[in-house]
Amino acid sequence: MRNPLNKKVGEIKPSGIRKFFDIVSEIEGAISLGVGEPDFDTPWHIREEGIYALEKGKTFYTSNAGLMELREEITKYLARRYDLHYNHKTEVLVTIGGSEAIDDALRAMIDVGDEVLIPEPCYVSYVPCVKLADGVPVTIELKEEDKFKLTKQELLDAITDKTKVLVLPFPNNPTGGIMTREDLEEIAEVIIEKDIFVISDEIYSELTYGREHVSIASLPGMKERTIVINGFSKSYAMTGWRLGYACGPEEIIRQMIKIHQFAIMCAPTTSQCAAIEALRNGDEDVAHMREAYDERRRYLVTRLNSMGLKTFEPEGAFYVFPSVKKTGMTSDEFATKLLMEEKVAVVPGTAFGDCGEGFLRISYAYSIENLKAALDRIEVFMERHKK
Amino acid sequence: MRNPLNKKVGEIKPSGIRKFFDIVSEIEGAISLGVGEPDFDTPWHIREEGIYALEKGKTFYTSNAGLMELREEITKYLARRYDLHYNHKTEVLVTIGGSEAIDDALRAMIDVGDEVLIPEPCYVSYVPCVKLADGVPVTIELKEEDKFKLTKQELLDAITDKTKVLVLPFPNNPTGGIMTREDLEEIAEVIIEKDIFVISDEIYSELTYGREHVSIASLPGMKERTIVINGFSKSYAMTGWRLGYACGPEEIIRQMIKIHQFAIMCAPTTSQCAAIEALRNGDEDVAHMREAYDERRRYLVTRLNSMGLKTFEPEGAFYVFPSVKKTGMTSDEFATKLLMEEKVAVVPGTAFGDCGEGFLRISYAYSIENLKAALDRIEVFMERHKK
Repeated sequence: MRNPLNKKVGEIKPSGIRKFFDIVSEIEGAISLGVGEPDFDTPWHIREEGIYALEKGKTFYTSNAGLMELREEITKYLARRYDLHYNHKTEVLVTIGGSEAIDDALRAMIDVGDEVLIPEPCYVSYVPCVKLADGVPVTIELKEEDKFKLTKQELLDAITDKTKVLVLPFPNNPTGGIMTREDLEEIAEVIIEKDIFVISDEIYSELTYGREHVSIASLPGMKERTIVINGFSKSYAMTGWRLGYACGPEEIIRQMIKIHQFAIMCAPTTSQCAAIEALRNGDEDVAHMREAYDERRRYLVTRLNSMGLKTFEPEGAFYVFPSVKKTGMTSDEFATKLLMEEKVAVVPGTAFGDCGEGFLRISYAYSIENLKAALDRIEVFMERHKK
Repeated sequence: MRNPLNKKVGEIKPSGIRKFFDIVSEIEGAISLGVGEPDFDTPWHIREEGIYALEKGKTFYTSNAGLMELREEITKYLARRYDLHYNHKTEVLVTIGGSEAIDDALRAMIDVGDEVLIPEPCYVSYVPCVKLADGVPVTIELKEEDKFKLTKQELLDAITDKTKVLVLPFPNNPTGGIMTREDLEEIAEVIIEKDIFVISDEIYSELTYGREHVSIASLPGMKERTIVINGFSKSYAMTGWRLGYACGPEEIIRQMIKIHQFAIMCAPTTSQCAAIEALRNGDEDVAHMREAYDERRRYLVTRLNSMGLKTFEPEGAFYVFPSVKKTGMTSDEFATKLLMEEKVAVVPGTAFGDCGEGFLRISYAYSIENLKAALDRIEVFMERHKK
């Protein structure tokens, strides 16, 4: 029998996060700080709206692009929070989480051989999805000394005449880095001059600490060349509902809807009904969770630094990204030994790109008690390996 | 600004079903027999399980391939119903409806230029998804005189040295045609001899009338070269839950899981919990709905034939596919005039492929009262156009 698979799919590596956590589940008493998922249940009033929808028999398909009412709430939300102004009838697509939105955008825009710029360290899906779309992923190494921001010069250096799209992943998973308005203005200038498009993954937009998130699509001249990706998973603790969205120029969204129509049909109806409630009455929940994350964040940064793991202060998302370079261990060595010796699971920085070498991703989407217990163990580990 | 889109996406036509029904919603008093969706609410005990899941706070990601418990129930179900035997740990992927499963399978298997055989008339997604995967869709015209079955000779005639996959869409939407064990045995022989793979879309497997569905994957030598696609939308009236699955050889499923992991992450958790209940305790609901569909089916076939619209007797799914050739009108003319003059909406057969010309798709996923009212109007229409 001949090979049933195509050439490209075998070359795509499975997620390095998953690989590591297959081991964790087999170790008794292990504390995991590995998963990129809020530890909060979805707020009750949002779940209740899902329950009502099921009780009322709202178990049918919605329109391909999503419930009109939901799309309208999404545009109102983006206007009041980020000064983004979209037409809910033509410029919004409701998707299966942010993931599908990214995939749809790439499938609509990328031709064979088009280069897609991907700042790393970053979320694990971008490179595989670009490859699946027959694009060429071109990674840009972000640096700790730049607070893991993308700089104008780095962007200019990476652009060739084949560059079509920049993926802009801020607030960033795994570094916690963000881009301020000033940072984005420098990037936007290059994007417009070089006639490039942006897929801006803003799934952590509600989780910034000390300053408000700014979307690159809100800068002059950028709305027409940006697809904004966002969703409910991180901000409203709704991961399992699988609900996100893409907003952008009608011309692109129309084609993304077509792909979505044939490959997915529509997002789950119960989730869409609940999401309307989240946008209408969920601001306080978001604020409450943000405060909890912020408390954990400060606790982690202080303790990690004090035990000799130099940790950049993240301003967004729910991860810290400490350097283990001083220990002389690689990311993988450190993470593996820590798991075996102290039963604490964190993710090696290399899971997010080669330039993640020398770093760990520690999620603080865990209770402060869990974090404290884990950090006590890490402290013991550090003491032992100092000697 | 340059063109943001790739070359192929613009060439893919939007669904012809949707196009037609955008008009319907604007006509007051119109009866639609157009949508391919059960008119039943999801059975209450299944919805209840979804509600429990939300109450208990099951709002988190599941593993990429789907809840282990659900995958186990899926394999038990396929074994008891269709004599299909899969390992739930390695050969099952839970997806966003059957749609995503088809798309994932094509994305995993098709290289640029590979030919994919698609018997038509058929569901609207296959051709676009093949194009998106850079494959070449090669359609095979099924004939009414063959009861819209795929014959061995038609298959042989369509195969070239570039053929990699046959999409096998039975029970068929829109014709209602099925393939018996004997029919499938003839096809399987060719598939094995020519070393081709099959994507068998069996989403309507529970809706056959008078005889049991047979899966081609249950025939000798076929499991290793078939991806079975199925799901909950049609059989359990769970369209809005967006839940389906693919089963197949580990080698292919592993790659499909990878695509699914990066592009989708996992299927909605609430839906997965409810689906476990459907598989465990839903047999009676399925039987009850099947009976209702069967009653409507017989009613429709009798009345359409008696008013001069020659209608092949469908043995599966929930559509009839009457011929309008005797009226001298094209499918599109007939459907448009019927909608304008009598306010009844049906889908022109051409929405399912060029060879659907001369036919209409009428869904009987509507109450018998609705069907009666619509058929009375069609009778008036036929009388008028006889003169």
